[in-house]
Amino acid sequence: MNKIKPSLAKGTRDFGPDEMEIREYVMNIFKDVFNLYGFRSIQTPSIENTEVLTGNYGEEGDKLIFRILNSGDFLKNTSEKDLNDQNNLKSKISSKALRYDLTVPLARYVSMNQDKISIPFKRYQIQPVWRADRPQKGRFREFYQCDVDYIGTNSKLCEAEIIDLVYTLFDKLKITDIDFKLNNRKILQGIAETLNFPERFNEICIMIDKIDKIGFDKFEKELNDKKFELSSIKKLIKILKFKGSNTEKINFIEDIIKNSNTGIEGIKEIREIDELNENYILDFSLARGLSYYTSSIFEVKSNKESIGSLCGGGRYENLTEKFGVKNMPGIGISFGMERIFELLDCNDNIQNVINDNKVLLSYLDVKFIPKCLEIANKLRVNNISVDLVTDNFKLKKQLKYANKNNIPYVLIVGEDEINTNYFTLKNMKNGEQEKKSIDDIISKMKSINKNE
Amino acid sequence: MNKIKPSLAKGTRDFGPDEMEIREYVMNIFKDVFNLYGFRSIQTPSIENTEVLTGNYGEEGDKLIFRILNSGDFLKNTSEKDLNDQNNLKSKISSKALRYDLTVPLARYVSMNQDKISIPFKRYQIQPVWRADRPQKGRFREFYQCDVDYIGTNSKLCEAEIIDLVYTLFDKLKITDIDFKLNNRKILQGIAETLNFPERFNEICIMIDKIDKIGFDKFEKELNDKKFELSSIKKLIKILKFKGSNTEKINFIEDIIKNSNTGIEGIKEIREIDELNENYILDFSLARGLSYYTSSIFEVKSNKESIGSLCGGGRYENLTEKFGVKNMPGIGISFGMERIFELLDCNDNIQNVINDNKVLLSYLDVKFIPKCLEIANKLRVNNISVDLVTDNFKLKKQLKYANKNNIPYVLIVGEDEINTNYFTLKNMKNGEQEKKSIDDIISKMKSINKNE
Repeated sequence: MNKIKPSLAKGTRDFGPDEMEIREYVMNIFKDVFNLYGFRSIQTPSIENTEVLTGNYGEEGDKLIFRILNSGDFLKNTSEKDLNDQNNLKSKISSKALRYDLTVPLARYVSMNQDKISIPFKRYQIQPVWRADRPQKGRFREFYQCDVDYIGTNSKLCEAEIIDLVYTLFDKLKITDIDFKLNNRKILQGIAETLNFPERFNEICIMIDKIDKIGFDKFEKELNDKKFELSSIKKLIKILKFKGSNTEKINFIEDIIKNSNTGIEGIKEIREIDELNENYILDFSLARGLSYYTSSIFEVKSNKESIGSLCGGGRYENLTEKFGVKNMPGIGISFGMERIFELLDCNDNIQNVINDNKVLLSYLDVKFIPKCLEIANKLRVNNISVDLVTDNFKLKKQLKYANKNNIPYVLIVGEDEINTNYFTLKNMKNGEQEKKSIDDIISKMKSINKNE
Repeated sequence: MNKIKPSLAKGTRDFGPDEMEIREYVMNIFKDVFNLYGFRSIQTPSIENTEVLTGNYGEEGDKLIFRILNSGDFLKNTSEKDLNDQNNLKSKISSKALRYDLTVPLARYVSMNQDKISIPFKRYQIQPVWRADRPQKGRFREFYQCDVDYIGTNSKLCEAEIIDLVYTLFDKLKITDIDFKLNNRKILQGIAETLNFPERFNEICIMIDKIDKIGFDKFEKELNDKKFELSSIKKLIKILKFKGSNTEKINFIEDIIKNSNTGIEGIKEIREIDELNENYILDFSLARGLSYYTSSIFEVKSNKESIGSLCGGGRYENLTEKFGVKNMPGIGISFGMERIFELLDCNDNIQNVINDNKVLLSYLDVKFIPKCLEIANKLRVNNISVDLVTDNFKLKKQLKYANKNNIPYVLIVGEDEINTNYFTLKNMKNGEQEKKSIDDIISKMKSINKNE
C-alpha cells in the first residue's frame, strides 16, 4: 500500500471528543428552544444543482461556491472552444455545487413543497455550509449555520415571539448581559427621505452598519467624502445618537419623519410589536448590510464580550421570488453558531455540566471484569454513562485515562470491594474518595444529573 | 431576477419536519446509547484532500468519489497534453473530494492526533457521506453513516460490550426480535485450510456472504462451477448448516479444524468472548464480504422484517496502515442508519412518543394574543412546546394547522376561558375536550412527557 502523509484540506477542521461535547450540548439547547417555540426542523441536501445557487450571492459570492466535478466522462459535452472560456467550461463540467447558505435551499424547499407544508411555515435548520473563502483566523471553508424563519406571514407576533426565543436561548446557554436591538428599515427609509437622500438608502444602510467598527467621527468624515449635504449629516448623526426609552425614541423620530409615509408605517409596526413585547432596545443606528430586508431588522450583541453579533435577522418581502413563487413574505433570524461555540468553549459553567454523569469502572485485576460488566449494566440501566478500560492497565494508568476522557468519577473494583459490597468512588476533580454500595452510587450519580 | 425552476440534484433528498422528527429522535437514541457505553463523538470535515480518499475503495469505489473543482483559475496548472488524459486532468483541476465513508477519515484523524487522543480510543461518528452511485430505490447520493470503533486494543471485552450496546440500542428503538450473529474469520480460515482451499479464502468468504440471498442450492452449484472439490463442498455445507447451542457449535468445529493453528486461535477467541457475554449466536455461515476483517465478525438482522442487516462489523489488524502509523488494531461496528430510519418511519410506537408534549395555543380573537403570550411563557418555562398561529385564522383553520404540524393538543383561549380561568384543552387524536386551569394543564402535559 502506498503510504500517504495524513493532512486536512485547507480551511477545514476535525472536531475531537472534547470539542464535540460542547458542540452537541450547545446544538441540543438550540434545538430544544426552537421546539419550545413551535419551530420544526428541516434538512436540505449538501449538494444542489448549480443554477439553484448561482445568482444569489453577488458576483463575489458566486465565485466562492464550491463546484462539484461531474462524475464519469466529465469532458463529454465540451468542445475545443469551451476550453478557452473557463466560465463556460466550468458550467459544462460541473452541474452541481455545495450549499453556500441555508436561505436559498429554504426558498427552493418551500417552492417545491407548497402543497406539503402549512403556511405560515415555521422552520429551523442547522447544517454546515461551504465557502471557498481564503481561510484565516476564525474563518473556515466549512462551518455551521443556524437559521430560524417564519414564512408566509406579516404578523408582528413573529417579532414578539423571536424576542422571547432569543432571551430564552441565551439564558439557557448561560450567555447573559445581552441586548435585543430592534429597528425598522422603513424608519431608516423615512429618515433618508426626510434628509433628502432617498436614492442613497442602501448606501447609507451599509455605512450605518459600520459605525460600530469605525466610530462616529470616521462615519461623519466618510459621509463628507461621499458628498452628503452637511446639514443632513449633522441631523443624521443627531438621530443616530439620540438616547432615551423606546417610547421616547418613537416619539422623537415620529416628529422628524412625519412627512414620510414609509417612515410612519415603520413607526406603526414598531408600536404593534411594542404592544406584544417590550423587551427590546430600539436602535436607529442598527441598519444591517443586506438590501434583502424590508421592515423589522434586529441584532443581538453581548455587552460583555467583544465578539461581534451573536445573531441577527429581519423581515423580507418574498423568499421565493427566484423560483417564481409569489406571496412568501417572512422573517428570519440567523445565529452565529461557530461564534457561540467559540464563546462557550471557554465557559466553565458549561464545561462542568457536560460530563457530570460519567463513571469509569476501574478493575484492580482482569479477573474482576465479569463483576465490572455486572455493575456497568446496573448503572447503565439507570442512565449513567459507564466506560471500562479494555486493556490490562495499572490503576494509575486507568485514572489517567479517566482524566484524559473528562470522566469525573472512577469506581474502583477490587477484592475488598467485592467481598464487602462497598465500592470506592473517587471524585477526579477534588480527589475525594468514599466507599458506598452500588445502590448509593447510583442515587448519587442520578442526583448529580438532576442538578444540571 | 431570472426565474429558475426549483429542483433537487439527482439522488438527493429534502427532509421535511415530519421526517426530521423521526431522524432526530432516532439519532438522539443512538448518541445516548453510545455515550452510555463510554464512546465519544468526533466529526471530520466533509471535504478531504483527494489523495487521502483515493486508493481505499477499489477501482470501482474510487470512481464514485465526488471531486470538487479547484476554485479560481482551475486550469492554471494544466497543459495541452493534460486535456487528452481525463484522469490526469481530473487530478490537476480537483485536489479535494467529498467524504466517501467514515473509516478513512477516522484513520486520518487518528494518525494526525496520536498525541491528543488516549489509546484505546473509543469513538463514534454520525455524518453524511457522498457517493456518485446511480440513484435507485433506497440508494441515494448523500446518506448518513454511523460508525462506532475501539482503536488500539485487542481485548475481547470490546466484543462483550458491543453485544450489550447493540441490544440496548435496539431495545430503546423498540426494534425487537433481533439476533446478534458472531463468527471469527480465523475459524473460516481454519475451515478453508482443513478443506484444502486456503488460497481461495477471500473468494469463499464473498460466496458464503451471499448464501442469505441465493440459498444453499445455488451456493452448492456455484462452488461446483468454480471447480471446488466435491468432497470439500459437501463438508463445507455440512459445517455451515450445523445446528446447536454455541457450545455445541464450538465443540463441533474444534474437532473438524483441530489441525489448523489459525482455526484453533479463532476458537480460543470465541471462548474468551463467551466467558464475558453469552448473548450471541455463533454462525459459521456469517462471512462479511470485506477482506479488511481479520478476527471477530458480526452482524445483526431483524427476524421480523426482511430489510437486510441492521448493523455489522468486525475486528481489523491496523486501521492506519495507509498513513504509515503502526499498531492500531481495532474493532468497529457500522449501523445502517438510513435503513433504520426507514424501518421506524412506519413504527407507530415511535410516532406516538415524538410529539406528545406539544400544545397549540389557539385564540378566538386577536385581542387575546397578549393573554396567549402570557400562557405560552408559563408552559414553556415548564418545558412544554408551544406554538401559536401568527395570523388571524378561524378556529377551524387553527385546528387544521395543529393536525398538519402533528401537534396533539390545542389549548383554546376565548372570552369565557379568560373570565373563568378554565381553558379548553382539546386532544387532537381522539377529539376529547376538557376544561382545566393552566396549572392543571401544565401538570397533565408534564406527566405525558414522563411516560415516554
